[in-house]
Amino acid sequence: MNDTQLDRAGKPATVSARISPAGGLDILSRNEVVRLRDASGSGLHGLLRRCALAVLTSGEVGDDPRGMFEQYPNFDIQVLQQDRGIKIELSHAPAKAFVDGQIIRGINELLVAVVRDIVYVATQLEQGAFNLEDTVGLTHAVFEILRNARILKPQIDPNLVVCWGGHSISREEYEYTKSVGYQLGLRGMDICTGCGPGAMKGPMKGATIAHAKQRRRKNRYIGVTEPGIIAAESPNPIVNQLVIMPDIEKRLEAFVRMGHTIIVFPGGVGTAEEILYLLGILLHPDNAGIPFPLIFTGPRQSAAYFEQIDTFLRLALGDEVAQHYKIIVDDPIAVAHAAARGTDKVRNHRLDNKDAFFFNWSLSIPLAFQQPFVPTHAAMRALAIQRKRPRHELAADLRRVFSGIVAGNVKDEGVRAIEQYGPFEIDGEPEIMRALDRLLQAFVQQHRMKLPGGSAYVPCYRVLTS
Amino acid sequence: MNDTQLDRAGKPATVSARISPAGGLDILSRNEVVRLRDASGSGLHGLLRRCALAVLTSGEVGDDPRGMFEQYPNFDIQVLQQDRGIKIELSHAPAKAFVDGQIIRGINELLVAVVRDIVYVATQLEQGAFNLEDTVGLTHAVFEILRNARILKPQIDPNLVVCWGGHSISREEYEYTKSVGYQLGLRGMDICTGCGPGAMKGPMKGATIAHAKQRRRKNRYIGVTEPGIIAAESPNPIVNQLVIMPDIEKRLEAFVRMGHTIIVFPGGVGTAEEILYLLGILLHPDNAGIPFPLIFTGPRQSAAYFEQIDTFLRLALGDEVAQHYKIIVDDPIAVAHAAARGTDKVRNHRLDNKDAFFFNWSLSIPLAFQQPFVPTHAAMRALAIQRKRPRHELAADLRRVFSGIVAGNVKDEGVRAIEQYGPFEIDGEPEIMRALDRLLQAFVQQHRMKLPGGSAYVPCYRVLTS
Amino acid sequence: MNDTQLDRAGKPATVSARISPAGGLDILSRNEVVRLRDASGSGLHGLLRRCALAVLTSGEVGDDPRGMFEQYPNFDIQVLQQDRGIKIELSHAPAKAFVDGQIIRGINELLVAVVRDIVYVATQLEQGAFNLEDTVGLTHAVFEILRNARILKPQIDPNLVVCWGGHSISREEYEYTKSVGYQLGLRGMDICTGCGPGAMKGPMKGATIAHAKQRRRKNRYIGVTEPGIIAAESPNPIVNQLVIMPDIEKRLEAFVRMGHTIIVFPGGVGTAEEILYLLGILLHPDNAGIPFPLIFTGPRQSAAYFEQIDTFLRLALGDEVAQHYKIIVDDPIAVAHAAARGTDKVRNHRLDNKDAFFFNWSLSIPLAFQQPFVPTHAAMRALAIQRKRPRHELAADLRRVFSGIVAGNVKDEGVRAIEQYGPFEIDGEPEIMRALDRLLQAFVQQHRMKLPGGSAYVPCYRVLTS
Amino acid sequence: MNDTQLDRAGKPATVSARISPAGGLDILSRNEVVRLRDASGSGLHGLLRRCALAVLTSGEVGDDPRGMFEQYPNFDIQVLQQDRGIKIELSHAPAKAFVDGQIIRGINELLVAVVRDIVYVATQLEQGAFNLEDTVGLTHAVFEILRNARILKPQIDPNLVVCWGGHSISREEYEYTKSVGYQLGLRGMDICTGCGPGAMKGPMKGATIAHAKQRRRKNRYIGVTEPGIIAAESPNPIVNQLVIMPDIEKRLEAFVRMGHTIIVFPGGVGTAEEILYLLGILLHPDNAGIPFPLIFTGPRQSAAYFEQIDTFLRLALGDEVAQHYKIIVDDPIAVAHAAARGTDKVRNHRLDNKDAFFFNWSLSIPLAFQQPFVPTHAAMRALAIQRKRPRHELAADLRRVFSGIVAGNVKDEGVRAIEQYGPFEIDGEPEIMRALDRLLQAFVQQHRMKLPGGSAYVPCYRVLTS
Repeated sequence: MNDTQLDRAGKPATVSARISPAGGLDILSRNEVVRLRDASGSGLHGLLRRCALAVLTSGEVGDDPRGMFEQYPNFDIQVLQQDRGIKIELSHAPAKAFVDGQIIRGINELLVAVVRDIVYVATQLEQGAFNLEDTVGLTHAVFEILRNARILKPQIDPNLVVCWGGHSISREEYEYTKSVGYQLGLRGMDICTGCGPGAMKGPMKGATIAHAKQRRRKNRYIGVTEPGIIAAESPNPIVNQLVIMPDIEKRLEAFVRMGHTIIVFPGGVGTAEEILYLLGILLHPDNAGIPFPLIFTGPRQSAAYFEQIDTFLRLALGDEVAQHYKIIVDDPIAVAHAAARGTDKVRNHRLDNKDAFFFNWSLSIPLAFQQPFVPTHAAMRALAIQRKRPRHELAADLRRVFSGIVAGNVKDEGVRAIEQYGPFEIDGEPEIMRALDRLLQAFVQQHRMKLPGGSAYVPCYRVLTS
Repeated sequence: MNDTQLDRAGKPATVSARISPAGGLDILSRNEVVRLRDASGSGLHGLLRRCALAVLTSGEVGDDPRGMFEQYPNFDIQVLQQDRGIKIELSHAPAKAFVDGQIIRGINELLVAVVRDIVYVATQLEQGAFNLEDTVGLTHAVFEILRNARILKPQIDPNLVVCWGGHSISREEYEYTKSVGYQLGLRGMDICTGCGPGAMKGPMKGATIAHAKQRRRKNRYIGVTEPGIIAAESPNPIVNQLVIMPDIEKRLEAFVRMGHTIIVFPGGVGTAEEILYLLGILLHPDNAGIPFPLIFTGPRQSAAYFEQIDTFLRLALGDEVAQHYKIIVDDPIAVAHAAARGTDKVRNHRLDNKDAFFFNWSLSIPLAFQQPFVPTHAAMRALAIQRKRPRHELAADLRRVFSGIVAGNVKDEGVRAIEQYGPFEIDGEPEIMRALDRLLQAFVQQHRMKLPGGSAYVPCYRVLTS
Repeated sequence: MNDTQLDRAGKPATVSARISPAGGLDILSRNEVVRLRDASGSGLHGLLRRCALAVLTSGEVGDDPRGMFEQYPNFDIQVLQQDRGIKIELSHAPAKAFVDGQIIRGINELLVAVVRDIVYVATQLEQGAFNLEDTVGLTHAVFEILRNARILKPQIDPNLVVCWGGHSISREEYEYTKSVGYQLGLRGMDICTGCGPGAMKGPMKGATIAHAKQRRRKNRYIGVTEPGIIAAESPNPIVNQLVIMPDIEKRLEAFVRMGHTIIVFPGGVGTAEEILYLLGILLHPDNAGIPFPLIFTGPRQSAAYFEQIDTFLRLALGDEVAQHYKIIVDDPIAVAHAAARGTDKVRNHRLDNKDAFFFNWSLSIPLAFQQPFVPTHAAMRALAIQRKRPRHELAADLRRVFSGIVAGNVKDEGVRAIEQYGPFEIDGEPEIMRALDRLLQAFVQQHRMKLPGGSAYVPCYRVLTS
Repeated sequence: MNDTQLDRAGKPATVSARISPAGGLDILSRNEVVRLRDASGSGLHGLLRRCALAVLTSGEVGDDPRGMFEQYPNFDIQVLQQDRGIKIELSHAPAKAFVDGQIIRGINELLVAVVRDIVYVATQLEQGAFNLEDTVGLTHAVFEILRNARILKPQIDPNLVVCWGGHSISREEYEYTKSVGYQLGLRGMDICTGCGPGAMKGPMKGATIAHAKQRRRKNRYIGVTEPGIIAAESPNPIVNQLVIMPDIEKRLEAFVRMGHTIIVFPGGVGTAEEILYLLGILLHPDNAGIPFPLIFTGPRQSAAYFEQIDTFLRLALGDEVAQHYKIIVDDPIAVAHAAARGTDKVRNHRLDNKDAFFFNWSLSIPLAFQQPFVPTHAAMRALAIQRKRPRHELAADLRRVFSGIVAGNVKDEGVRAIEQYGPFEIDGEPEIMRALDRLLQAFVQQHRMKLPGGSAYVPCYRVLTS
């Protein structure tokens, strides 16, 4: 149902239309409209255009962040203030976002989220409302962006399960993520993911069916993305609450502050980045005693994947790291029960500490995990992968390794840098380097670095193993 | 996700529970509760037990109407009057209808529909409220049962598409029914089917996804069934409005009085019965000039199916019959557009005639199509398949032919009769008999007579072609 | 705000309009529409016309049941079946029911209730669905009419307070009924009354303000009326659920089967009838042990009223009767607390007995309280007011005395009978007769027999005190 | 129903309770909670305490801004962050805001509005988000505060009627404001007022009844207040959307930017301030051609009032000023029709100019009307009431005259200043001064300067008429 529609010339069909924004878009002020309309200077319009096109191609799959604009080169978006609120004017937009000339309502809502978040972040930055230099200020920024997006809901018992995993996974793995989502949904859980395809879509799809069977109406399918990733992981159409965080680090912080349980499905380097991000935080001494349910799970065929991850984690961070996660193979009901039990522990801990349900204030996230990492060749080379360092610092740098590879694989700037300067070089303690190399090669062999059907994977990195 | 759960002994797992009915169950009077509770005499309890089990196994697939009770031999249901309304007590019910001991809400609602309709029909019959001897009285009964089930909605523009087709269809056909449902759903149509698997489930599933994308909330997935068929075509879980009509003839009348467009997908004898029922009515002179959109459609692979049907219909009823339907091959968007245009014509016709949108009062349905046909061997033998008869009378008897074969294939009583007395014998004008034989054999070859995976089909009929 | 609008000629202004019924009017069948349209034969149209006009003059006050038609002599109502449901055509209807040509929505809803109930009762009677000869059948009829009107709601904790009292009361009394309603409303109670002015309006008005302050949205302001009384006690505009019972006895049964607490404000003979009806039932040995909270209350100025009632009740029925009610003077909060406590007892009793919350099935109502009493001169004369009789039988006849006087005062037929044959004669045991005479004279002196502003009250009865 | 409850010692009864905020309170950040909790430094806690107490005494009437704290000297409010959101802890709060220990939900919502607005304004000011030096920045601040309060609604046709008038008016005037509100409500208008008693309550009350009759559910009763006035004009309980603007000038700008029609009822100096504010703006050349319906109305008995106002306005600002308003005496339906017609003009003008419905962006409000006026004795003396000045500048200073008198009458600081330094002295062109003196004396004679029942009015001003 998601195939690109073609026009008579065989090019992707397009539609131009003026639409009324649906759902929770607050009224924009004149300043904000002017800012959005101003296409030349600030770069805001480029950002808007990119994110909007990602939303409009929702459901289309492709790894090349630039391909989208090659398909729809004349696409444009303008925001207009008008009589009953604002209007969004789309030119040469993908036809598949429309039915008989009318935009699909769910896509309209995602478009509204894009406009809302881009305006909000730009306005706050301009006003200097965020202090991005210290850890309190950065957490505050994450909180404010989520609050402005109306994603934080008071008065709801902990029930938000964050699902991580690859956008490029096998059919069996995908079906498995659906089964887990189905069992979670039957038990009244809501789902939050990075909102692309694969493991980010399956749990939502399974939960949708379960929620329908349970006649549960106020479901939350939360997508948390960022401008660098949205093109490669275009929001799937089930997402009904989308937020665009300014960068990958704030996106990751949003996941761990909001989620009550995190389930990790098989994935590639992005998934490894997420795992190291979270474990690095949980290993920090300040976070001892804070319950944080973390489950690694996949179908029987993928059992090896988590064994490899587990081996690497124990080698790099010590065996104690394994206390922080539970591996469950091929048992969706057991996963749902573990999520329910874990969420219950979180609930009791928050009640005891009079802490909010909707935002995990008490978790310490060190600055090293918050500050945006720009994966230049120099920065990648400078990472210090040494076991003599405190484990959470080592985890922080390991996270950056994977983050850099994600950028080199699918992010616009990263791909350009690799094209220009060749692969990143990653150096460190030889034993870890060898283990890292094995892990990455396994990812390649398991087709976890690229969407299937593409050309053979050409690594964007080189591990200096000797 | 629909597999039967097994207990440790390998038998189907069961749950016993007392549940509060969800959704629109009106308060029952003490009389009605007593009537339901009274398991011995009236047979009402047996009917309730059978229909309830069908709903509780919702999603399970099987052609043998008696298999259900072999799997859950101790299943029972009791209705109790209690403090805040009524309670339904289930014993040894299929475990898959429950999550951690709680019944799935959607299944609860279907159960409520079962209780509601069985009580209502029994009460009305007892009071002699229905005059079942004449055509006005029979239509009145259909109307009252639908009204009591709250399925007739005023103030809604015509948008109800009835989808007919087989419960046993190929993967391609099933996917095609989903695509058609998706395109209908994107355009704001609601779906009504016989509520079993196959072509009765696909359009609802496709529409569900489209409705979610359009953020359409008040969707109607109407299932119309009857006690003889419910076990073989257990309501799929998407159905959110279920009505159990007393017999197949009232079920068919419900379809044609409520639907604004009818789409027929490939199917077997049941589908042929439905087609002949509707064409017989549309051929009646009283119905000339009443618009009734009827679309036959399937994927490319199934094009032959409708050619065969078309050939048979033209042979038996004359070429003019083809004016009443449109065949569309492999084009879901064209089907949706045809349904939209047809529905629009219906709307205008009703407005011009000041007729209701929710019930097609002006259509004449002759008594021959309304009176229950009991397919005994004698009755089947007595059918007069002769082209010299008025076409709508011939159509009525042809409808009975297919109806009898459905009964012999999957209905409890029919199956028993065939086991006891051998196949039905069908006689008539030789040319028609031969055409009928060819059509039925094509159904057998295309596996349209039985669910796949079962044993070879043993015909329950014999066409006397010489 | 409720004054009659006049046209230029000084006559009541009228509007003619075709309206779409609002709210819960189910679809009518063609039979039912025909029945309503048929103005000549069955008398149904006359009944409809009378009740509809009462609803359309909602808020106007007048004691003369015939005055309404003198004001709007050309008023007519027709029901039409049309495209999206039915239409109601009003001719020469009171202008005040409209705003700029559009009918006020709340009045539209009351009109729908009138049509619904009249059709339903007529249909059921025609089908012989009600057995009106025995007590079970009569209770069943009450239940069915309430159920059809969707007034019985399952899943709601007992919270329905029935308020009785006069339609013609003093300003202080009216303000007091508002204060009591306000205190009930603050505590989440719903209100049910006879739906006219005075004590039938005040509690609803007070509760409306309290419900608004509590932001309570699903409020029930239930009006229970009957064709004989609706013209004199035209539904006040706050009523959002109206039911028209066929006669006064079924109306009274509806009150006591639905109410969880009954509060009686000062009133006249109608109120006395209600008190005797309920006490007669509660005195029946079968009802011993069933909790039924009954509170008599009024402002300080009306303290004498309940003393007189109390004196009369103790004299006629013995001192034990006083166990069944509680008199509270001038303390709305105490009344609300007593209602809350009483309702709680009812709740626990129903839970213990597994009885419904929405209908008091376990209360025995003897046939003498159920069968319609037609107050002819002969019937009134035949009442046996003797203390030697069982108390509940005596109460039944005393109830009939007051019922007859109500009819003679305000009901159409009663007024005619008095005009023709002179006052009713009421006879019985002299001591009771004298007490009755004192009570009735007190009512006259306190202006409780007629609306203020009218001419002096001319009694429609004569108590034979010697 | 609004009387202060007394405890056994005869003092106002109080309740202490921890409450969960109801309705639209967004989640607070930790910073914001800390800021609110910090009672000593910033003065924010004092402001919160004052506004909260005003809301909790909602419906109590008194002119002395300090009386409230004399009645409830120990009242305190704290905001706590907790498990499921925030909690509000009230100590020694007025008992009448509670029912059996539970806070009335509507009052809870108003309390939430108080917390929301105080936090928001303080946060924005701290961040320097508002530019309060120029007219664009000031309008932006008004817009942002209203947007944050969720009061601006897109997609709604113009229907907001702002009602101005005195909090101390006669019974006839009050009843008249109710009648006007009733007629507006019947026609689907929403109401916005300053949210105190008198003319600020009557229209809402009338509209409430009309909205109930029309079964209109999404009603807006918007109260716009400011910290200086909230104690004297405590929000009436009907208000369901409350916003606390930082000062009187922003409150006035909020009224004129949001309202589609303004109706002025009789009032005192506050009303005169409002009239001069609006006429000053409308007289500005930039606003020529912008439709702005303005209606002065009152019952027959108050006809003189608007004659006096009209005379004064024509004298001071020239006869042309009268083009901007329409005087309607004693005709609520005519007022409603005028409001409907005016609103329609506004609608068309906004459509033509592609301007928003929810905020009147195109109206120019000169800085002189936006900058807060602090009525010190020096500032009052410095006002230049001279007809040779441009009319809108003169109007600006006349507005300040009345604003100062309001402060001297009822605002905390103003009352203190008068107590310390004696009455304000107001000087200017003699003819205007004499007219002003006559107008103010008429207000005194008509008891428009103080609530009835208080002591004789002692003027807080002296007009230097020679």
